Amino acid sequence: MSTSNNPHAGKRRSLSIEGHRFLIVGGASLVGSASAELLLRQGAAEVTILDNFFQGSAENVEHLSGDKRLKTVRADVMRLAQLIEATRGVDGVLHLAAVMSLTMDRDPWMGLDVNIRGTQNVIEACCVNDVKKLVFASSTAVYGYGPGIVGDLVETMPFHSVGAPTAATLYGATKIVGEQLCRAAYAKRGLDYVALRYATVYGERQHYRAANALYIVETHDRVRAGLRPRVIGDGSETKHFVHVSDVARANAAAFAADASDVAVNISGPRPVTTLEIVRLVTALAGKDLQPEHIDPEAGKVRLTSGGPWQLDHSLAERVIGWRPEVDMRDGIARLIAWRDAAAK
Amino acid sequence: MSTSNNPHAGKRRSLSIEGHRFLIVGGASLVGSASAELLLRQGAAEVTILDNFFQGSAENVEHLSGDKRLKTVRADVMRLAQLIEATRGVDGVLHLAAVMSLTMDRDPWMGLDVNIRGTQNVIEACCVNDVKKLVFASSTAVYGYGPGIVGDLVETMPFHSVGAPTAATLYGATKIVGEQLCRAAYAKRGLDYVALRYATVYGERQHYRAANALYIVETHDRVRAGLRPRVIGDGSETKHFVHVSDVARANAAAFAADASDVAVNISGPRPVTTLEIVRLVTALAGKDLQPEHIDPEAGKVRLTSGGPWQLDHSLAERVIGWRPEVDMRDGIARLIAWRDAAAK
Repeated sequence: MSTSNNPHAGKRRSLSIEGHRFLIVGGASLVGSASAELLLRQGAAEVTILDNFFQGSAENVEHLSGDKRLKTVRADVMRLAQLIEATRGVDGVLHLAAVMSLTMDRDPWMGLDVNIRGTQNVIEACCVNDVKKLVFASSTAVYGYGPGIVGDLVETMPFHSVGAPTAATLYGATKIVGEQLCRAAYAKRGLDYVALRYATVYGERQHYRAANALYIVETHDRVRAGLRPRVIGDGSETKHFVHVSDVARANAAAFAADASDVAVNISGPRPVTTLEIVRLVTALAGKDLQPEHIDPEAGKVRLTSGGPWQLDHSLAERVIGWRPEVDMRDGIARLIAWRDAAAK
Repeated sequence: MSTSNNPHAGKRRSLSIEGHRFLIVGGASLVGSASAELLLRQGAAEVTILDNFFQGSAENVEHLSGDKRLKTVRADVMRLAQLIEATRGVDGVLHLAAVMSLTMDRDPWMGLDVNIRGTQNVIEACCVNDVKKLVFASSTAVYGYGPGIVGDLVETMPFHSVGAPTAATLYGATKIVGEQLCRAAYAKRGLDYVALRYATVYGERQHYRAANALYIVETHDRVRAGLRPRVIGDGSETKHFVHVSDVARANAAAFAADASDVAVNISGPRPVTTLEIVRLVTALAGKDLQPEHIDPEAGKVRLTSGGPWQLDHSLAERVIGWRPEVDMRDGIARLIAWRDAAAK
């Protein structure tokens, strides 16, 4: 492409955190709260949390309320005018607002609206107000689910949907659409962006909306009530998680890196099986309870795969200089400590 | 699933054409006009063409206007109320309304609206009015584009997007979403459907909106003006077409077959290369012109693949009892004859 056609000519592709203003769309969330905390710690001039508080909650960012650089705006990704207002003067936007497979299953109409129209609106607002960089929360769901998912998931892996639940395929398709809308905005309107394909995020302020994270929180709910934990089937199914603090670091790294127009995997140090998760949660909760193996429940959304797999994150290391630091033993210990403290 | 939970209990999955009422959404089109003609010939009690005439044209169905069973409704897939009105008393709905990659490239916002929200609206209207069967026009685009596309494309093939244009990936994603919305409506609301994954459709009443069909019509435009036809690159790129009369037969077969909740490929007898297409069009136009090989134009949407491939249609034969009848020599001859007649 010639320089005259290049909307990026002369632009920097890195956005340092210090002294800059950030907006986190869908920020009153698991990932949003940890990211806001980190951006403030790294010297951001201002961090604004935008949320409609449908899924997010004010409690998630309460621990940051003492910081005068933190602002909160009640707004909705379905309302473009609110996003245009909220992005005025902002340097970097982190777009997290989305519904996941469980909500998509209950209401695909709303799910498609929030994930697709919401992302169109965020991109439009970024372009209108010359936001310097967008970090888009994509997902490992862009590789799909079902028996086709096996081996190393690298960024060139195609999307598998045969044998996958409708809601999971719809969710994955919305993330594919989101990434392509970013690509189109980069090519045609000069918007720099990095898409991060998160593995299943877990950690402090964990909610019940992510199908895979239920393996952690539902196990913890049972064992702390003295009940035997449950494992679906033989427990050999692979899952790959990433701790929320590592995701927050990846978001900050994506802004700061000299990278644009790229999508990279963000995953924890190594994958686990569902049986390992259940045993780990039980042990870290200080319980001596043997898991019981149960049949999958009909009608429940389960994100299955075809055998051992892992979400390879080596491209993220090369492109944004990031790698995970928190292994699951530490991460689950932190999650349990937070839940124990919250229960008091 | 127990019978009590099965919304399909006791329902027939086949819908014979004779004596039944059909609605073709996006019907004033290449595929719509041929399908309306065939449904009328097979004894349909009524065929209603619904179109907003943004892409479709009244000319496309003018040849059927003498038949009192044909009705035309000006309405828009973005207006649910109009679809609910139009599906009242209808037995079968053929949903064709969509924008393709070239339009998606110019305006992804509109493209996502029409292809996703439009399909949501059509499905909603079908469920509200207890339509017996929906035939959804999906596309080979659900397998994607780029170097991953090679070999036999069977219905279990995943979606490839690496190396593909943004607009083509967005278009493919909208068809994946459409199929999954049909699946969800089948499972939760009892709507019987068949999704047909059309190869590139060509034939009488050909338009300029399909990137691959341009290989036919742009070649014909040049050679009938006495200009040498153009081939992009060495012309070895594989394309797979299907004649519009075969697509119309597939649509009717999908209604009549005892099949539901399935997606099948609809393609012509065999694939061709772009050089073969150009030579065939030139010869059938009665011209003795040698093709010139040109470089791909920057910025133009091209639907590339990784090597020889074909869209396997054997599942369609097993499931809806259909196979293609028109080879490309006959099909292009019919297309050229129609263009010559239209030019007079």
